[in-house]
Amino acid sequence: MSKKESRSECLVACSLDLLGDKWTLLVIRDMLEGEKTYKQFQEAGEKIPTNILASRLKTLIEKEIAVKKPYQENPVRYTYSLTDKGKALWPVIRELMRWGDKYVPEGKLTPQAKYAIENF
Amino acid sequence: MSKKESRSECLVACSLDLLGDKWTLLVIRDMLEGEKTYKQFQEAGEKIPTNILASRLKTLIEKEIAVKKPYQENPVRYTYSLTDKGKALWPVIRELMRWGDKYVPEGKLTPQAKYAIENF
Repeated sequence: MSKKESRSECLVACSLDLLGDKWTLLVIRDMLEGEKTYKQFQEAGEKIPTNILASRLKTLIEKEIAVKKPYQENPVRYTYSLTDKGKALWPVIRELMRWGDKYVPEGKLTPQAKYAIENF
Repeated sequence: MSKKESRSECLVACSLDLLGDKWTLLVIRDMLEGEKTYKQFQEAGEKIPTNILASRLKTLIEKEIAVKKPYQENPVRYTYSLTDKGKALWPVIRELMRWGDKYVPEGKLTPQAKYAIENF
């Protein structure tokens, strides 16, 4: 059992305890393309606030959804990438995109995303 | 464009603008079984607070993900059910359950959920 008790044994509830907010799955989306630096996350279109990014990355590492490794010293900086547990979230993101493509007119399906949701 | 501008054109971000919290997809999960009364939502294992339930149902109706219809008068009470746009969220919930089943040890896959994620 994690520090915070789950609200129920329902797998939807358990998953949302980890993923249910407006930012976590966007940070995971970015890492599905490959490892990212802190700066690269901040350059994504949604302009994630730095305190939220730091907090989400910390939680994702604690929950073994992502790992970090240093790519420079003085000052030390890290790249962040998904573990297998994190990569296994692709189908959740794919279905959010499919639903958005059909029902959210503000959204745009990029050619890259179209290719991904049709082929993976 | 909705009242609130979307954070980006990314379909993941657009979908999370509507669905990205700890409760909305649980309310949708309940309606996937069929129409629900306010009381039935409150009886679900997660014990959703009444103010959150009222707020989520209001938004889901505004966004045409759910509809309500009266089933009694004096006082008027409603049942809530999913529109086609709401029912189309089943694959998102299915993938959250599959991921939880593999990676979240606190969660339990009920026989009913197991049947659903294997067959639909």
